[in-house]
Amino acid sequence: MKETVKNEEIDHIVKKIFEDYEGKKNIDEMDLFSKPDKEEVQELVTSLFRIIYPGFFRDRSYKIYNPMNSFAVTIEDTFYHLNKQVYLALGFRKNSEEISSEEERKETSYRICKNFFDRVPLIREYIETDLLATFDGDPAAGSLEEIILAYPGLMAITVYRIAHELYKEDVPVLPRLMTEYAHSLTGIDIHPGATIGKYFFIDHGTGIVIGETSIIGQNVKIYQGVTIGALSTRGGQKLSGKKRHPTICDNVTIYANASILGGDTVIGENTVIGGNSFITCSIDANTRVSMKNLEMEYKNGDHEGKSEEVRQSDEWYYMI
Amino acid sequence: MKETVKNEEIDHIVKKIFEDYEGKKNIDEMDLFSKPDKEEVQELVTSLFRIIYPGFFRDRSYKIYNPMNSFAVTIEDTFYHLNKQVYLALGFRKNSEEISSEEERKETSYRICKNFFDRVPLIREYIETDLLATFDGDPAAGSLEEIILAYPGLMAITVYRIAHELYKEDVPVLPRLMTEYAHSLTGIDIHPGATIGKYFFIDHGTGIVIGETSIIGQNVKIYQGVTIGALSTRGGQKLSGKKRHPTICDNVTIYANASILGGDTVIGENTVIGGNSFITCSIDANTRVSMKNLEMEYKNGDHEGKSEEVRQSDEWYYMI
Amino acid sequence: MKETVKNEEIDHIVKKIFEDYEGKKNIDEMDLFSKPDKEEVQELVTSLFRIIYPGFFRDRSYKIYNPMNSFAVTIEDTFYHLNKQVYLALGFRKNSEEISSEEERKETSYRICKNFFDRVPLIREYIETDLLATFDGDPAAGSLEEIILAYPGLMAITVYRIAHELYKEDVPVLPRLMTEYAHSLTGIDIHPGATIGKYFFIDHGTGIVIGETSIIGQNVKIYQGVTIGALSTRGGQKLSGKKRHPTICDNVTIYANASILGGDTVIGENTVIGGNSFITCSIDANTRVSMKNLEMEYKNGDHEGKSEEVRQSDEWYYMI
Repeated sequence: MKETVKNEEIDHIVKKIFEDYEGKKNIDEMDLFSKPDKEEVQELVTSLFRIIYPGFFRDRSYKIYNPMNSFAVTIEDTFYHLNKQVYLALGFRKNSEEISSEEERKETSYRICKNFFDRVPLIREYIETDLLATFDGDPAAGSLEEIILAYPGLMAITVYRIAHELYKEDVPVLPRLMTEYAHSLTGIDIHPGATIGKYFFIDHGTGIVIGETSIIGQNVKIYQGVTIGALSTRGGQKLSGKKRHPTICDNVTIYANASILGGDTVIGENTVIGGNSFITCSIDANTRVSMKNLEMEYKNGDHEGKSEEVRQSDEWYYMI
Repeated sequence: MKETVKNEEIDHIVKKIFEDYEGKKNIDEMDLFSKPDKEEVQELVTSLFRIIYPGFFRDRSYKIYNPMNSFAVTIEDTFYHLNKQVYLALGFRKNSEEISSEEERKETSYRICKNFFDRVPLIREYIETDLLATFDGDPAAGSLEEIILAYPGLMAITVYRIAHELYKEDVPVLPRLMTEYAHSLTGIDIHPGATIGKYFFIDHGTGIVIGETSIIGQNVKIYQGVTIGALSTRGGQKLSGKKRHPTICDNVTIYANASILGGDTVIGENTVIGGNSFITCSIDANTRVSMKNLEMEYKNGDHEGKSEEVRQSDEWYYMI
Repeated sequence: MKETVKNEEIDHIVKKIFEDYEGKKNIDEMDLFSKPDKEEVQELVTSLFRIIYPGFFRDRSYKIYNPMNSFAVTIEDTFYHLNKQVYLALGFRKNSEEISSEEERKETSYRICKNFFDRVPLIREYIETDLLATFDGDPAAGSLEEIILAYPGLMAITVYRIAHELYKEDVPVLPRLMTEYAHSLTGIDIHPGATIGKYFFIDHGTGIVIGETSIIGQNVKIYQGVTIGALSTRGGQKLSGKKRHPTICDNVTIYANASILGGDTVIGENTVIGGNSFITCSIDANTRVSMKNLEMEYKNGDHEGKSEEVRQSDEWYYMI
């Protein structure tokens, strides 16, 4: 298609876009190397899965006979890349005065990575309980291996548990990049700031949102489309840091598409929240909650000769 | 960043993680080669799309002039990889006593693959009807090619139809790995065990869940957020194998975000289920169902001087 | 596994599939080079992100010291690939008689690409406002960079704004391929035909559907699971081109999982639509809308000795 392309027009296009870059918008930052790299963070998550589930996710860039031989290399390599991304992310700390020198930033990053790897056994202990809870809760699960290899719920929880450890160390940007990678793969949006106990089970999962200041106990089950969210964000940035999301106590089950909202909302132990519920206040322990007045309307046959009003309401059927 | 990294500390980290692997958790399995590989399964699905939609999805690792020259190679190569993954998956059959020798396992795997490829024309026959149903149902569809290349609904249905054939042959793990790959790409979660007739149309699709024992007739249309699900899973693993999901008869339309639940629930022919419906019992044929008591409440102007109660309920507006 | 594979059986499989290709289904098109390539379109979107957010998304195939040196190359290369895909897509114009010669098709494609790149500064101007709206609206956002790197809402809006420019130039297939790529990554389904003003904010986003003929003003906020959709699609293809989706005026907020439906539905300025609302008619400006009769039902303790009716309704709790 060379003949139709005019060189001077391409030059003009490049010139105009370069001029536009001079406008110093927030979306312009010419320094590629001052911030975490999205693709590298995704590869980091992939490597961490190889460490957390040894023997389940293969690095196909090597021919491997005995996986143990490769694990030490994988751990070292992952440490290097985590250290690099944490170092870059530390540049976004709001109170950056606390890191006064390049040397101190390197040491902080190294210390955070060391702490993280020290806690890998603890992370793995939690994830083992999530796996068991998933198997117990889902009659469609054929084996534990099927869950590890295929279930989006366990994947999203695993990434959350990794990211949460970095969030607790006050690493900016990076934890959210990790959980948004999981969100992209699973449709499950867990903020790395949420606190979640052992034996957490998510089924199907698409559409789940768990907000930054949520507190979730042990043995909680959550189904697709559930929101653990905030009320009123009119405050916007002014609400940053406040508890805006609910507390869910131990052994609570929340069925599909239910919304539970508000920072003061507490769902007591052993309570069951029915599908499609909309909850904005606290619920006692040992309670079962469902929608009231949930009646369906039925009409039979065809629709000729009906009044305007009926036709109007009929259109509801045809929502897409 | 070399200077801050202490070799003996890295060694210690590796040692601690290796010790943790000795704990023999369920998430520890050192043998990478005894189970289906997630990435290979995803490539297998990609190859199968090239066979099912010849000429639509290019293998960019070759320069190709005449696609027909490459199809025979693609089919052979895909057969090889499917055979490999089925062989690995057969290790997870619960009644593994039925496969008594290595030889028998190889032969079973080969037979399953042969049966699968023999049914490719039948799979393609079904998918052709799904394509036509999609075009007829969506006024935004510009061409059949646009649907094949871009529509997530047809993609999820295609992967389901592939995986369902393997599910019927009692292949463990692999069918679910395939449909979860589609789930990840589309937000549509169809269990490979579901039975679905011709001319199936999914629009938009994000959030759809179709359970393992669902039975869906011909000419059914389903929109985003619809759950064809189970009631009560308190039984957990004890319910494995029981019919837990609804039966949807021919020509039924289910609009966005409706939930239809329970193994005894039957939705009769030609029935239309309105958006947001919550159905837990059978519905006659030729019926139109919608939410009753679905009224909205309106308030105008600003909110000064309002009572505490009103402010309380106002907060509902601000759910995030 | 060689021993179990019978060459003549593989040959037979290939022969049968080849015969099936002779059936000339709509899913058979042997010419790989006559239509946009899905993978190339995804790479095109990735390149366009590098141009729109200079310095945020790195091309790791080069070692780069000064990003400015590489931008001119990136722009030229992206122009080339966009030109190629637009050229291919033009073959799907319904009124193909308007393009009478190969020469004219090349010139049309080139002109469209030139127009598109001329508008890159305008696209960037809009996206800068979307970024600011996102930061203002979300108390969990730590920095503008975090939003650009991690937030699915801004990603989906960016791809929509790119695709919309091509849609306006009457490019078939390609714009939808772009927005469906974003849909796959984010769960947010914005049709490229929708019209959307500045300062658009999407939070969380999974499950959002915005239809082809929607009109959305400035400063609009939309949360996860919101549908801006059509009523009655019984017309199917006959409705193609008609306004089927709502108009949302300036400063409207639509909370999670609300559905707003119908081509005549207008939501007036400054109006707030509560979570889970189901709206099928116009709403005045400055109004707050929420579900009426939204009561929950509570039951305490265990369930022994309860009547059949109660048990029946209890099952609602156990929806999965």
